[in-house]
Amino acid sequence: MDVAIIGGTGYGAVELIRFLHNHPHVHVTKIISHSNSGTDLAEVYPHLVDIIDLEMIALDIGDLAKEVELVFFATPSNVSKHYIPALVDQGVRCIDLSGGDFRLRDGEKYQAYYGGEEMVSQSYINQAVYGLPELNKEQIKQASILANPGCFPTATTLGLIPVLEKDLVERKSIIIDAKTGTSGAGRGGLSLNVHFSEMNENFKAYQLGVHKHIPEIEQVLTARANEDIQVTFTPPHIVPMTRGIMSTMYVDLKDSQSTGQLIAMYEDYYKNDPFVRIRKEGIIPSTREVYGSNYCDIGLYADQRTGKLIIVSVIDNLVKGASGQAIQNMNIMCGWDETTGLNQLPIYP
Amino acid sequence: MDVAIIGGTGYGAVELIRFLHNHPHVHVTKIISHSNSGTDLAEVYPHLVDIIDLEMIALDIGDLAKEVELVFFATPSNVSKHYIPALVDQGVRCIDLSGGDFRLRDGEKYQAYYGGEEMVSQSYINQAVYGLPELNKEQIKQASILANPGCFPTATTLGLIPVLEKDLVERKSIIIDAKTGTSGAGRGGLSLNVHFSEMNENFKAYQLGVHKHIPEIEQVLTARANEDIQVTFTPPHIVPMTRGIMSTMYVDLKDSQSTGQLIAMYEDYYKNDPFVRIRKEGIIPSTREVYGSNYCDIGLYADQRTGKLIIVSVIDNLVKGASGQAIQNMNIMCGWDETTGLNQLPIYP
Amino acid sequence: MDVAIIGGTGYGAVELIRFLHNHPHVHVTKIISHSNSGTDLAEVYPHLVDIIDLEMIALDIGDLAKEVELVFFATPSNVSKHYIPALVDQGVRCIDLSGGDFRLRDGEKYQAYYGGEEMVSQSYINQAVYGLPELNKEQIKQASILANPGCFPTATTLGLIPVLEKDLVERKSIIIDAKTGTSGAGRGGLSLNVHFSEMNENFKAYQLGVHKHIPEIEQVLTARANEDIQVTFTPPHIVPMTRGIMSTMYVDLKDSQSTGQLIAMYEDYYKNDPFVRIRKEGIIPSTREVYGSNYCDIGLYADQRTGKLIIVSVIDNLVKGASGQAIQNMNIMCGWDETTGLNQLPIYP
Amino acid sequence: MDVAIIGGTGYGAVELIRFLHNHPHVHVTKIISHSNSGTDLAEVYPHLVDIIDLEMIALDIGDLAKEVELVFFATPSNVSKHYIPALVDQGVRCIDLSGGDFRLRDGEKYQAYYGGEEMVSQSYINQAVYGLPELNKEQIKQASILANPGCFPTATTLGLIPVLEKDLVERKSIIIDAKTGTSGAGRGGLSLNVHFSEMNENFKAYQLGVHKHIPEIEQVLTARANEDIQVTFTPPHIVPMTRGIMSTMYVDLKDSQSTGQLIAMYEDYYKNDPFVRIRKEGIIPSTREVYGSNYCDIGLYADQRTGKLIIVSVIDNLVKGASGQAIQNMNIMCGWDETTGLNQLPIYP
Repeated sequence: MDVAIIGGTGYGAVELIRFLHNHPHVHVTKIISHSNSGTDLAEVYPHLVDIIDLEMIALDIGDLAKEVELVFFATPSNVSKHYIPALVDQGVRCIDLSGGDFRLRDGEKYQAYYGGEEMVSQSYINQAVYGLPELNKEQIKQASILANPGCFPTATTLGLIPVLEKDLVERKSIIIDAKTGTSGAGRGGLSLNVHFSEMNENFKAYQLGVHKHIPEIEQVLTARANEDIQVTFTPPHIVPMTRGIMSTMYVDLKDSQSTGQLIAMYEDYYKNDPFVRIRKEGIIPSTREVYGSNYCDIGLYADQRTGKLIIVSVIDNLVKGASGQAIQNMNIMCGWDETTGLNQLPIYP
Repeated sequence: MDVAIIGGTGYGAVELIRFLHNHPHVHVTKIISHSNSGTDLAEVYPHLVDIIDLEMIALDIGDLAKEVELVFFATPSNVSKHYIPALVDQGVRCIDLSGGDFRLRDGEKYQAYYGGEEMVSQSYINQAVYGLPELNKEQIKQASILANPGCFPTATTLGLIPVLEKDLVERKSIIIDAKTGTSGAGRGGLSLNVHFSEMNENFKAYQLGVHKHIPEIEQVLTARANEDIQVTFTPPHIVPMTRGIMSTMYVDLKDSQSTGQLIAMYEDYYKNDPFVRIRKEGIIPSTREVYGSNYCDIGLYADQRTGKLIIVSVIDNLVKGASGQAIQNMNIMCGWDETTGLNQLPIYP
Repeated sequence: MDVAIIGGTGYGAVELIRFLHNHPHVHVTKIISHSNSGTDLAEVYPHLVDIIDLEMIALDIGDLAKEVELVFFATPSNVSKHYIPALVDQGVRCIDLSGGDFRLRDGEKYQAYYGGEEMVSQSYINQAVYGLPELNKEQIKQASILANPGCFPTATTLGLIPVLEKDLVERKSIIIDAKTGTSGAGRGGLSLNVHFSEMNENFKAYQLGVHKHIPEIEQVLTARANEDIQVTFTPPHIVPMTRGIMSTMYVDLKDSQSTGQLIAMYEDYYKNDPFVRIRKEGIIPSTREVYGSNYCDIGLYADQRTGKLIIVSVIDNLVKGASGQAIQNMNIMCGWDETTGLNQLPIYP
Repeated sequence: MDVAIIGGTGYGAVELIRFLHNHPHVHVTKIISHSNSGTDLAEVYPHLVDIIDLEMIALDIGDLAKEVELVFFATPSNVSKHYIPALVDQGVRCIDLSGGDFRLRDGEKYQAYYGGEEMVSQSYINQAVYGLPELNKEQIKQASILANPGCFPTATTLGLIPVLEKDLVERKSIIIDAKTGTSGAGRGGLSLNVHFSEMNENFKAYQLGVHKHIPEIEQVLTARANEDIQVTFTPPHIVPMTRGIMSTMYVDLKDSQSTGQLIAMYEDYYKNDPFVRIRKEGIIPSTREVYGSNYCDIGLYADQRTGKLIIVSVIDNLVKGASGQAIQNMNIMCGWDETTGLNQLPIYP
């Protein structure tokens, strides 16, 4: 199957290329870049020299619709909504990695958290499926527009959904202390938060109150819990490393539970999900243990002293938090095994 | 004043030496090392070559009592309690940086969290003053045995005490998400948690349930709140950096408060404390902003959506979390200005 | 084909496992560990949880010879020589990643650089083939004992061989300024050189005069140059990163050459070698551009001011410098395409 | 003495402020910033909050000449030459940290390496003294314009001058393999070379052939050797750390010398220079051992196999390579002890 990637110079695109290179059913035939059309991809990403021989091109929706069956949007926010409708109308399936354009269902929240722009028309929002395969596999199979989840929402909701669905925790108590590497900020748009001399040997909390992943997390949790959920998700922290997200979550257990009971419940909940690994009692996963891979690893600890459940969920933000999950979604949309092309082991050390 | 440092090859000692080198009233005349007596300090720490010319010696309590007026113990836990009584009895003041030996007042908790050993006899515990100058300045002035606080307790209690004393928060709600650089683990005792290839480009939670700083934090908070306080302080996380602690704390506000009101209250609370800096509204401190210095910087955010107060407190774990605070305590004990010898600026970047 | 790995808890073994997991012709059936027999591999390396389900076992040469066709030795120096003869005599092919046991042909140098032990008997040395596929492909095909090259020798000799063979440089002038990440020091044997707090935000030169890779580099260069070659390879430097080697080499050109001419010559020299990439004029490779992959990337610059040729060669020390090259060698020994199982792209960023 | 700093938002300025804060004879009364006039310094550098209370102002040469006795220029290249003549003519002494404006004496080389601009008029070049105190102390005492050396030239020339002056090495053989942390690139002017996700876990060589420190190094060495010196100084490498330069130098010894003899000679050469430390035989300094301090540490190794002398010189690029050295020069210019205000120990770890 021929596919295109839009946003060719970002980390999302280059990570899609890494996995798709060894995917047995897919061929990346077009890489589209607004800022670098006419340039060889390997000039922008020299690690691809002598491996990927593709010149980036400008976007032409009409051509694209004739030449590929599926398009990945690895673009900044507020871009994909301008192009996906036309593609979908011509029968091209679209996977959107790019922000809130198709993730949020509430236009007001979209405007509040994504710079005040108007949402795409409701009929396309209705077509869009939120692509967290562990929750929505059946809907994903039919998706023409796939809204690929954000990195923090992926790590966080996979950690919280089981106890919320089983109604084991106080819903007003959810605290998410999130930490991310710097690559989530992308390659472009340099700021002091990704400046080596400022971030090395430093740990900082970077945004108060208005992180755009808050409404996305709350939308997913609310849908699963059948009840309005508000979470404390601020400030997220930046770790002096490139890849990795850890979401440390604190919730009040309604009734006393042992760590072992909760682990057994999580294992059962995710027993058909090849990319979620629940750790044994006493073990908490670290970000390095999923580095470069599509796994989400979850550790649990029920603190008997305080009645709190602590959930630690780790992913590689560029893989399960972006491009790996996009490929997992593509696999499901195309009827392939969801692990196809994603069976690389974490790189350690 | 002549002073001695016991535990000469650890990071605590070497950081004491850095500050005392420029202290106008103090001269380090003895450095004692069990494992390296007879070796020049600069051989173990080559950055001191041509600056500090001292051979480390073995411990002889009798000699020491004659030769110095004050002794710093920068030793592992369960060491200082064997030597401090004899020194104090001979009129030598002691500052103990070394763990729970003189910090905890409850022998059972000491045994539970510090490897099952018996506590030093109660009369010496009674002489010991817990050396957090922002809380105990008057008592510190008189101390013969000064129990220097742990790194996590310092960052955490300075962040929590004002709202606890003013009774603004629900006391069962306290969650402390703590993060530390690797130097807290010391130079000796190498383990995978401080192995470069394992910790670089990694973020991990390292201990569940039984961290020895829990009873210390709870003892301080309980004393100030006049009510039994239990906190959720687990797991602490390790950041791939050498120095720095950030304690991100979440508490439920009893009544709605604006961020600005709370900041004003904290500024007032610490108005006489030169090493506590409260950040302006909208600003959260990062660990680098106190790097190498004795400051504790605190940022606040009252989340109006969820009614939570988020408190972020950062210190350099080797300075305000250990050696800098020890010198601040010494200054107070000796009647000098508490900033003496500690007026070096944070190193940035 | 069933294979075994000896030295199961080291980085060499775990990197073999990463690549062999997706190798179409090979199945790792035995992992042998002296120190951890009886333990699940995933307990020692939690990133393999739910993926690799193998208990490590103790070494029994007799059993091994019956059960596998090929054995990888990822052991410390001075181990493999005690076991490889027996295995080879029973028809098991062996690939030795472990140091000088079968790399050096000169017993005196082996003793001088590898701790004074005696070399294995000459008949086995004679059977051993030095496994740098870019030089020795034909011999490797027949090898029963494959001596897998060291990490520094791989990066260095691939950079130097073309100009030495073509006799373009003064042979007394070779200077190799080598830099490595910390993972070359392995997981065990913790020392201050791999202690996070000591190596982070630090750059050091770590050994003077006697690095054990010197005789190996000189042996390879001498054989290709048909003349005794001595190199300046000291001190190698440690970079505060986990993976990657850069070898910056300086040689005097006999006659003036343009950078472009030299690049063309290198491209021609390596035209049949899929894992060597020569960079275009003006571009120098960085270690990240080969991270996690089996590539050796080489950049060249002929300084017209000084008549020096500067050669920069980078590899991932754990891949092309160890386990990836071992698999490449296995592929050649078994008659498979040399890239089989090694076609993963570098991970960037 | 009142002084001003021009270029207030750069790392050079903030490092000047760190040291001058504790300088007994100097008061920084003006901080000038083109881009941030009207902003509090502590807003741009929050680590200075509650310590330095200064608003940055725009440059007014006339006012400045009346209000301060000495001005530090911590500006980009090609700025100071437009202002220093007017200040000097009004009797204000100037220390220029900013690049080649007053360092190079040859107008053609200045144009070739500094963007083609014309040099300042020769009479001011004649007034300028190159401020490497270990070489020029007497001239520095009289300087009205002090050209503060570049970071690479400082580390490199301090390592090479003794053997060049004593005529112990072949002058055509000098190779300088230089490595620097990222802070040398400054805070502004973000590029991929200082982007955290690109530089972390990476090691790269960043510039071929035309580094602007080449003519500066050659000018100093030529002056001391009384003979035209050309060096191979390319490519410099970037280390994934913030601070520190290591210059590893390779030269051919004319006659055989032991390492011990050479060390003795270096110790003698620098016996009156408090900031140069020569390491004992067998010991090579690391960058961390001078971190945050004004030391230049030098290690030597005479390789008896190859006749090469290897010299390793390390500095903190922001201190001895910039602001610390500027203060050392100021001290000498003002007749104070050259260590005044610079006696802070290296920070370790």
